[in-house]
Amino acid sequence: MAIEKKLIGVDLGGTTVKFAILTETGEIQQKWSIETNVLDEGSHIVPDIIDSINHHIQLFDMTADQFSGIGMGSPGTVDRANGTVIGAYNLNWKTLQNVQSEIEAGTQITFAIDNDANVAALGERWKGAGEDDDEVAFITLGTGVGGGIIANGKLVHGVAGAGGEIGHITVEPNGYMCTCGKRGCLEQYASATGVVRVARDMAEEFAGQSKLKEMLDDGQEITSKLVFDLAKDNDALGKMVVDRVSYYLGLACGNLGNMLNPAYIVIGGGVSAAGTFLLDQVTKYFKQFSFPTVRSSTSLKLAQLGNEAGVIGAASLARQFIK
Amino acid sequence: MAIEKKLIGVDLGGTTVKFAILTETGEIQQKWSIETNVLDEGSHIVPDIIDSINHHIQLFDMTADQFSGIGMGSPGTVDRANGTVIGAYNLNWKTLQNVQSEIEAGTQITFAIDNDANVAALGERWKGAGEDDDEVAFITLGTGVGGGIIANGKLVHGVAGAGGEIGHITVEPNGYMCTCGKRGCLEQYASATGVVRVARDMAEEFAGQSKLKEMLDDGQEITSKLVFDLAKDNDALGKMVVDRVSYYLGLACGNLGNMLNPAYIVIGGGVSAAGTFLLDQVTKYFKQFSFPTVRSSTSLKLAQLGNEAGVIGAASLARQFIK
Repeated sequence: MAIEKKLIGVDLGGTTVKFAILTETGEIQQKWSIETNVLDEGSHIVPDIIDSINHHIQLFDMTADQFSGIGMGSPGTVDRANGTVIGAYNLNWKTLQNVQSEIEAGTQITFAIDNDANVAALGERWKGAGEDDDEVAFITLGTGVGGGIIANGKLVHGVAGAGGEIGHITVEPNGYMCTCGKRGCLEQYASATGVVRVARDMAEEFAGQSKLKEMLDDGQEITSKLVFDLAKDNDALGKMVVDRVSYYLGLACGNLGNMLNPAYIVIGGGVSAAGTFLLDQVTKYFKQFSFPTVRSSTSLKLAQLGNEAGVIGAASLARQFIK
Repeated sequence: MAIEKKLIGVDLGGTTVKFAILTETGEIQQKWSIETNVLDEGSHIVPDIIDSINHHIQLFDMTADQFSGIGMGSPGTVDRANGTVIGAYNLNWKTLQNVQSEIEAGTQITFAIDNDANVAALGERWKGAGEDDDEVAFITLGTGVGGGIIANGKLVHGVAGAGGEIGHITVEPNGYMCTCGKRGCLEQYASATGVVRVARDMAEEFAGQSKLKEMLDDGQEITSKLVFDLAKDNDALGKMVVDRVSYYLGLACGNLGNMLNPAYIVIGGGVSAAGTFLLDQVTKYFKQFSFPTVRSSTSLKLAQLGNEAGVIGAASLARQFIK
């Protein structure tokens, strides 16, 4: 009887590297994490990953040939064909990193890589809110806004890997300047810092009674979580800010739907912790901005896997190696 | 020696049905067309198509087994799996039409169907401006605005067939009411009637010297072609209208690019007869609204196949039957 092989998923981030061992059907059997050592131009990261994988394989009394493959999600610009990464600034990776060749040599396990937002999209699609559907879009609202699009069961990378750059959909043609150099990107309104920025700007023109307004005027530090919490508590300015943020998200989701008509648009990331309070308002605008067929066949959902989306999606990259 | 088989492409429209016989590599060898008889709830259409195919096969001294398959593009709501069409109002097809089963029974040739905009996209992708790339988006500017999206080499239909509804991207949240029931759809600004509508509205607030303004004030019939021709002749209002239309097209193309990063966004249809005069202005706004990677890797191009995109793309649907 053949023993079922396992998959390894690696979620590489600027502060931690998360690992998991999964069955080929996507059940997590073991997970652990290490700190990301970004010193010396990030030169310790890949060796640390190799050591940690080898150590845990030994710890669990396993061998390399019991694994079908390793998949990894990485920040920066990922070259999937060559297994390299460049320009991951939160890792101090400024020069080209030969991630695949080093990890394959160091672990003797076949390896695949994609960018972190795409990998999270694959995770939510496979084992989360995407219900393993062939048509799923994923938006993650965190420090930035990222995304991944799955159509006909495959990630859409586009011709230069910029497919799924949902954070850079233009939602306000003459809007805020984005770090990418153009104006009005969704990221400037719906990321954690974007929400705060919208709050500050709306506060300037707001005249009524509002705790949020008082805190801003008082120079207190505010967070997107605070904005949502106050809005839930009926704060007048807070509600206006959430409405504005939801409007932009709904417009972006509407146009995503009009182009791709996915079964699910899954919203994850820190800002989505606001839960159904956010989802319901985004859905209202999504319906306003979507074509009737899309309105009735594309659903907005909250992500379900939280932090585990990364390792699960990364592991799913290695499913291609299952024999 | 095996004789190379042929493909048949059928482009079903409200006034004519176009046919072509192609090699399996997409070279047109024969083409012809018949009038679309929409009388009696369009009940003559499918029999007429069958008769015309059989007649021409005989005429060219061929037999059914010399064809790999027939592909067809149709207006209305197409069910690809079942080979049916419903709600094609320009054909008077209000009830479900069993197109595939009838044509297969009538011709003894395997048959596949998709909607007309998707089929035109496949045509431009295969033998036109799309250069047979795996990542191509197609926008057709005609009476309406349609489109088709090819990602990873396959059409994106989405969960309910509304993938590629590029005409219903919201480009002006509080804009013109569309026939689809929502506001600000691209179709309301960039279709042939949309361009005229923009001209009429901008004329109301225009005070300078303009032949277009004079013609509108005089109650003369104007067309989108006239608007573009006058703009090319330096008409002040005409130039403003083309700029506005290009802005909306550039915004839609930018967001298409930001989501999908295709190699080419191909613009076809009657309005695109304005040629590079239109393309250059749309490209200017596309660059303004696209993420840097997209700006440098996604190109806007004019369609190259004209009326033949439909039959070529339709024939390409039958490539799946090549043995």
